Order: sequence, then C-alpha cells, then structure tokens
Amino acid sequence: MAGAAALVMLRARDVAREIDAAFDHLLAMPGDPRDRLYAAMRHAAIGGGKRLRPLLVQAASDLFNISRDSALRVGLAIECIHVYSLIHDDLPAMDDDDMRRGKPTVHKAFDEATAILAGDCLHDLAFQILSDEETHPDPFVRIELVQALALASGPAGMAGGQMMDLEAEKTRFDLATVTRLQNLKTGALIAVCVEAAAIMARLPAEARLRLHGYARDIGLAFQIADDLLDVEGDATLAGKALGKDAAAGKETFVSLLGVDRAREQAHMLVDQAKAHLHGHGAEADLLRAIADYIVERDR
Amino acid sequence: MAGAAALVMLRARDVAREIDAAFDHLLAMPGDPRDRLYAAMRHAAIGGGKRLRPLLVQAASDLFNISRDSALRVGLAIECIHVYSLIHDDLPAMDDDDMRRGKPTVHKAFDEATAILAGDCLHDLAFQILSDEETHPDPFVRIELVQALALASGPAGMAGGQMMDLEAEKTRFDLATVTRLQNLKTGALIAVCVEAAAIMARLPAEARLRLHGYARDIGLAFQIADDLLDVEGDATLAGKALGKDAAAGKETFVSLLGVDRAREQAHMLVDQAKAHLHGHGAEADLLRAIADYIVERDR
Repeated sequence: MAGAAALVMLRARDVAREIDAAFDHLLAMPGDPRDRLYAAMRHAAIGGGKRLRPLLVQAASDLFNISRDSALRVGLAIECIHVYSLIHDDLPAMDDDDMRRGKPTVHKAFDEATAILAGDCLHDLAFQILSDEETHPDPFVRIELVQALALASGPAGMAGGQMMDLEAEKTRFDLATVTRLQNLKTGALIAVCVEAAAIMARLPAEARLRLHGYARDIGLAFQIADDLLDVEGDATLAGKALGKDAAAGKETFVSLLGVDRAREQAHMLVDQAKAHLHGHGAEADLLRAIADYIVERDR
Repeated sequence: MAGAAALVMLRARDVAREIDAAFDHLLAMPGDPRDRLYAAMRHAAIGGGKRLRPLLVQAASDLFNISRDSALRVGLAIECIHVYSLIHDDLPAMDDDDMRRGKPTVHKAFDEATAILAGDCLHDLAFQILSDEETHPDPFVRIELVQALALASGPAGMAGGQMMDLEAEKTRFDLATVTRLQNLKTGALIAVCVEAAAIMARLPAEARLRLHGYARDIGLAFQIADDLLDVEGDATLAGKALGKDAAAGKETFVSLLGVDRAREQAHMLVDQAKAHLHGHGAEADLLRAIADYIVERDR
C-alpha cells in the first residue's frame, strides 16, 4: 500500500501541475467586462482538488500508448465538467456550501449570478476542448468523446444523480436506489475517464466492457470512501464541511450498511476492480494503485 | 411585408410543432426519482416561444438542400441551449423573472435547485443531440457543429454576453460596448443557426462569410427590436415583464440612440442582411422574410 500511495502521489502531483497550467492558459483574463467571470472560473479551477479524473485518464491511457497531450486535454475537459458541477452544487439553492478545497466557494468569493455563469462557461469549455482537433486528430474519436461526456454529465449521468440526491432529502432511499444515485452522480464521470482512453485507443466493444467494470467498481468504492470520510474524516484536511448528509437526513452507504460493512464493501469493490485488470502487466500499475488509494485516502 | 409575415408564420408554425414533438420524445418521463427534473425541463421546453432559432436553421438549410431531419435536430440542439439560458437567466440571482412565455418561470413552478439542474441538463442534451450520428452521417460535420455551438454558447459567446449584461447594471456602457454585449449575448446563438447550415453544406470559407454577415445583421436587428419592445411593447403579448432594463439603469440601443434612430438602425440592418443574400433566388425567400419579420413583430 505504501508503494501504491507513493506511485499515485507522484503521478498525481505531475498531473495537478499540468492541469493547473492548462487552466491558466485556457482561462487567460480577457481584459474586458467579462474579467469577473474569468476570475471566478480561475478561482474554482486552478490550485486545488485531487485531480483524480485527469489522473485516471492518464492511468488508463498508459495501457494503450496514447499521447500524453491527448490524455491531458481529455482530462482537462472532464475536469471542466467536474469543477462546473462543484460550483453549481455548492450554490445556496443546492447544497449551500461556503468552503470548497479550503477556499470560499465561488458564490461566496464572488456572487451567485457569477457562480452560475462560471459553471455554465466551464460546461461549454469542456466541449470546446474535446471538439478541437488538437485533442485528437481523428474526428470519429473526437465526436465519440463528446457523446460519452455529454451522456456522463447530463440527466442520464451526473446531473440526474444530483437531482436524485436532492430528492433523497425528502424520501428514504433503499440501498439499490442509493447505489443507482451514486453511480449517476459520481460514477458516470469517473467511468468516462477510463472510457475516454478506450475510445482514443479505438478498443473493440468487448475489451471496453472489462475496463468499464474497473471504472464502475472504483467509482462506487470512491463514493463509499467519501461517505466514510463524511462520518469519520477531518474537515480541515477535506477543505469542506463534513457530516452534512446525516444532518440532512439522507441515506448513505454508511447509514444503510454501518461503518464496518461499508468499509468491507469498499475493499471488496477495489479487489474486484483490480481483477478486471488481469492480463495487463506493469502498464496497469497506476490503475491498480489508484484503486487502492481511493479507499485509503484521508481526504 | 404582409406576404413575408405570412410566409414566416406558416413555416414557424410547422417548425414549432416539430420542435414540440421532438422535445416531447427527448424528454420522456423516466419514471424514477428524476421525474421532477424531467417535468421541469418539459415545462420550459415544450409549448412556447417563437422557435426563431430552429426556424433560422431550416431557412438557411433551404439554400443547400439539407435534409429536413438534420436541420430539425440541429435546430433542436440550439433550442436546448436557448431554453437552458432562459431558465438560468430567469433565476433570482440573475434577472429574477417570474414569468416567461406566459407561464411561471421554472424556479417559480418548481424550485431554484431544480431550475439550475434542468438548465444544466438541457445544456448537455444539446451536445448529445449534435454528437449523435442521426443528426448527420459525417463525423467531420458533427464535430464542427459541436465546436461551433460550444463557442457560441460559452464565455466567448452567449454566457460571456450575459456576464457583460450583469456588469451593465454597475457601469455605463457606450454604444460600442452595448453592441459587443448583444453580439455575444444573443447574436452568437442566432449566428450559429445559419453557420450550422453552412457547416452541413460543407460550404467553403468565403461563402460562409456572406451568410455570417446576414446572421450578424439580423442578430443585432433582433436585439434592437427587443429593446424597442421593452419600451413600447405589450407585456401580455410578450408573456414576460417589460421595461426592466430602464428600471435597472442599463444602457440599451434605445437609451443610447433614442426610439427613432434605434428603429432606423434596425431597418438599415435588415436591408443590409438581405443584401448579403444577393445571388440567391426563391430558396432564400424565408431568410429574407425572417429578416423583415424580426423588426416588425409585436412580441
């Protein structure tokens, strides 16, 4: 485990630096009345976060010798979606959070209108990046990336899961419904990181299924680990408020399974995720290490 | 003019019916905890609006014998962006509007969180539609459509213009800045309707420029007409509150030019728009009629 954590940390640090530099370039201040909008996007996008999604794109790209540039740009696009979703989820009308990644949330540092627009703009930038030929020379690949990301982030993915999450405050969901909720809310965007590498590698459908299994398992393990951190974690390390689900009366993996069974379940999913990588050698080491890291992290 | 209005009305009625049917199909209720999200999207998307953008895609597609299905799906995607932008712009933190198209706005009929998510989902659905091969068989065309729409709706287009509009309440903009604001806020999405037809027709760059001139001119004329309606129009016909810009202390074409010169300017732009269509015959009649209609409409 120590080796796995070290491998993840090393690559994660590189990816974080590259993503920060890419956002810095993408979000250069225009020097006109849109400056406040760009400042808000920069506040949310630069300097912070685990960059798990871009790291996953890199790790899955390791399997297929995909160019580092392509993997970086795809990771950047997916991170745009992730950051936009955090900005909107933090809004007073949604989860009403004041802190994110150890900084004031965008609507706190700026205002609500600017936060809504900053989210909307990052949402567009994701598709602008993917459709650009710099991302991949093959238009078949680019259009498939667009389709996969639009599906993963829309009503059949992330945003649909967020809606279920809002409804979870009103109804008591059972384990199957909470699992579905999390598969949409966080699982879909994590899965698309791995799927994107498969698309760029023009992998046949069958080979994609196994990779998809890996992604689905770590996505769920990630969410269970998040639920455990929400109960047992350190708010300072997390850089955001904890214990909110219990306060809102929402069912989580921990409330439904208890701490011990939830932890067991997460470890079982990680083993299962790694089993999907049988047949791969050292080129899958980062994917394996990420799976381990996901349940061992402290934030 | 009467003939032009009749031609526009006739085609607009057909397009409106087709767009409503397409939204009805696209937004079929899932029968799960996301029902409220879909109900909110249906509330905003079905039954209402002039459907000017889908009509423009059809009109520009008339020039190049583009399949009616392709034009309809592209119009639907652009209308998804338009509807999402109305939902977000109406939010209390933005323009704080209670009525839209003669109905309560989404956050009034549902709630703010649902409105934010409904907008976000329609935003994704636009790119889902464009990336689907049903929209166009050629992936080069599809990816170019995605790129054009992402540009037109993001920080260099519609959303950037909306940010400038928010800043307009704090500063006094001059005519050049108001023109730029409107070119971004409404012009970019109107222009992409015409540009999309040029992309589907695989038109060379030079021929695209003239069409772009048409689109830029009617986009600006449309906004001047909107400013005139905001001052002189009938709120019942408009289905929304009027006179809001003056109340917010924002400069508009009417406040900067006066009613008479603003109206002159709009008519001049319409003439100029039609001049860009020289060389085209009857196949451009709908584009010409739309240009006339834009400054003659009463809502």
